[in-house]
Amino acid sequence: MRIVKVSLGDRSYEIKIQTGLLSRLGSECLRLNLGKKCAVISDVNVKSHFANPALESLRQAGFEPVLLTIPAGETAKGLKTVQRCYDELAAHRLERKSFIVALGGGVVGDLAGFVAATYLRGIPFVQVPTTLLAQVDSSVGGKVGVNLKAGKNLVGAFYQPRLVLCDLATLETLPLREYRSGLAEVIKYGIIYDRVLFGRLEKTLDKLLARDPQLLTSVIARCCEIKAEVVGADETESSLRAILNFGHTIGHGLEAISRYGKYLHGEAISIGQVAAAKLSEELAGLPADESKRIGALFERAGLPTSAHLTKAMRRKLHDAMQLDKKVSGGNVKFVLAQSIGKVQYGQKVPADPLERVLENL
Amino acid sequence: MRIVKVSLGDRSYEIKIQTGLLSRLGSECLRLNLGKKCAVISDVNVKSHFANPALESLRQAGFEPVLLTIPAGETAKGLKTVQRCYDELAAHRLERKSFIVALGGGVVGDLAGFVAATYLRGIPFVQVPTTLLAQVDSSVGGKVGVNLKAGKNLVGAFYQPRLVLCDLATLETLPLREYRSGLAEVIKYGIIYDRVLFGRLEKTLDKLLARDPQLLTSVIARCCEIKAEVVGADETESSLRAILNFGHTIGHGLEAISRYGKYLHGEAISIGQVAAAKLSEELAGLPADESKRIGALFERAGLPTSAHLTKAMRRKLHDAMQLDKKVSGGNVKFVLAQSIGKVQYGQKVPADPLERVLENL
Repeated sequence: MRIVKVSLGDRSYEIKIQTGLLSRLGSECLRLNLGKKCAVISDVNVKSHFANPALESLRQAGFEPVLLTIPAGETAKGLKTVQRCYDELAAHRLERKSFIVALGGGVVGDLAGFVAATYLRGIPFVQVPTTLLAQVDSSVGGKVGVNLKAGKNLVGAFYQPRLVLCDLATLETLPLREYRSGLAEVIKYGIIYDRVLFGRLEKTLDKLLARDPQLLTSVIARCCEIKAEVVGADETESSLRAILNFGHTIGHGLEAISRYGKYLHGEAISIGQVAAAKLSEELAGLPADESKRIGALFERAGLPTSAHLTKAMRRKLHDAMQLDKKVSGGNVKFVLAQSIGKVQYGQKVPADPLERVLENL
Repeated sequence: MRIVKVSLGDRSYEIKIQTGLLSRLGSECLRLNLGKKCAVISDVNVKSHFANPALESLRQAGFEPVLLTIPAGETAKGLKTVQRCYDELAAHRLERKSFIVALGGGVVGDLAGFVAATYLRGIPFVQVPTTLLAQVDSSVGGKVGVNLKAGKNLVGAFYQPRLVLCDLATLETLPLREYRSGLAEVIKYGIIYDRVLFGRLEKTLDKLLARDPQLLTSVIARCCEIKAEVVGADETESSLRAILNFGHTIGHGLEAISRYGKYLHGEAISIGQVAAAKLSEELAGLPADESKRIGALFERAGLPTSAHLTKAMRRKLHDAMQLDKKVSGGNVKFVLAQSIGKVQYGQKVPADPLERVLENL
């Protein structure tokens, strides 16, 4: 088992990575000094695969779990679903020491985490991410929240889980498209923080696409280490943490204008990262060959790297980016790369090059 | 001007108390290093009295305020209203450095605070409480939240304001019933923490009911001092802060079973405190004459001290109390008084005496 520690004072916690961890969910929770009652929040898809083993493991450890099922997909990640969860938690009489287990991908983790952060002003929660994207990104770091019509993740909190359990076995049933979507975040860590990781991904991509368990364990652990380091230095994104948003400003915008229906998150940020690399060539001195390597790796991973936007769609995209949480004084801020492994955050991007890149997306 | 400091490390803030402070809202906000855009959240009643001076003061200081109006009353304090506020904030493009001004009573402060705590994962907010109850209690200490059908304040966060401005002039237009409701929290501070304050209230109640500005300033300041001391010692209510809930377990239950329609909060906790005093006689050694003094003071303040509950209503009340946030392992915990000025929190109350007190409420 690989263990990565997220150091945040009295809110520190561990990320555990291993095949078969789900069956140890109950005993792992026993070590956290929680109440008996808990709610496992999952979506209709994940539930059919993993809800029973999760509930069984919790029961065997003496907990009294109830299962809350939410619809699958990004459209479920809104206040309506949150309201339904609250009402069910109250109906099942969950108390302050009761806890929530988020069993699923990013949508489930973000939403269940927000419910945990706000029900009774906050009860403990445990993340059991079942997608690659959630394991390397959304389950770690305490960003929880839901979408508004106006944009993604516009409502939320910083609220850390008490434990993250990554069971590699849950990735075996993951549809290829979703697995690839997770690789978009994996590649991101290489670009923003670790040139060696990027090179290693170039070399081992085929094995990674074949979901080799040993390689996956070490790659996921490295991604979590990077995220833990960044979040430990800047929990609430007043500075360094912003680098995690590389490719996300345009990516989130694309998701918003397509109403979260067309692209998976990883697909949108794949396009966004390739666009950010192009901006970086022009504005941050990213060498053209490194920008090409970035585009090539996303393509080899089977991810989209371009989108053909009409003028009307580009206008919508600009509007959506204005609502990005990174906007300050009306200026959209970008993360730009100087080289693979080294980025700068908080970069103002003039309208001209941005429009040029979007035209040629 | 009286200034009370709430000491919470980098989340410390000041409560300022004076007649006429509303006209200085803008200049006071200027000192907080906030963005230009802000949203004043108020209800339809308060708005007609104070929204214009608030907006004017903010504009004069160079801010760009928008006004969000919510319905008046406890029934507005739910997720539907929260959703509407989010959508308006997004439509007005409020950013992370933008801020929210909560202008109104407890409902407005709790709801606007929750919106501030969660919009973009948290933006700054300033409390301008316009009721006695909000000035001495709900605007201070960072408890923000909304109600569920199942109970009051079941959803929320601990999120501190950046500043609290108590303008005594706003109390002049307060309906008598609401003013009296605020006195229920004032009296509470005497019971839980300050025997001298309680004695002073007994002596000066008539002057206080006449809203004497000098007396009000010093009484409000003393209540805020007590709250600041308690919250400074235990922000998230893991221990001492629980004493602030004296009378609230039964009080919240009464509000819930009457669907927040019959009682004002102060009225419900007046009944709740008298009931808690009776329980305290039996279980915590509160002398009978002190229990009488407690009941007498609430009565002189024009507050209800009894409720006639049918058996069916008592059963509902028990159920509602089971949903109280202070419940642990299924046990409702009470704050009980040993004497006026001295209470114990986390007290288990057996079913028998509780039922007896409720029968004779």
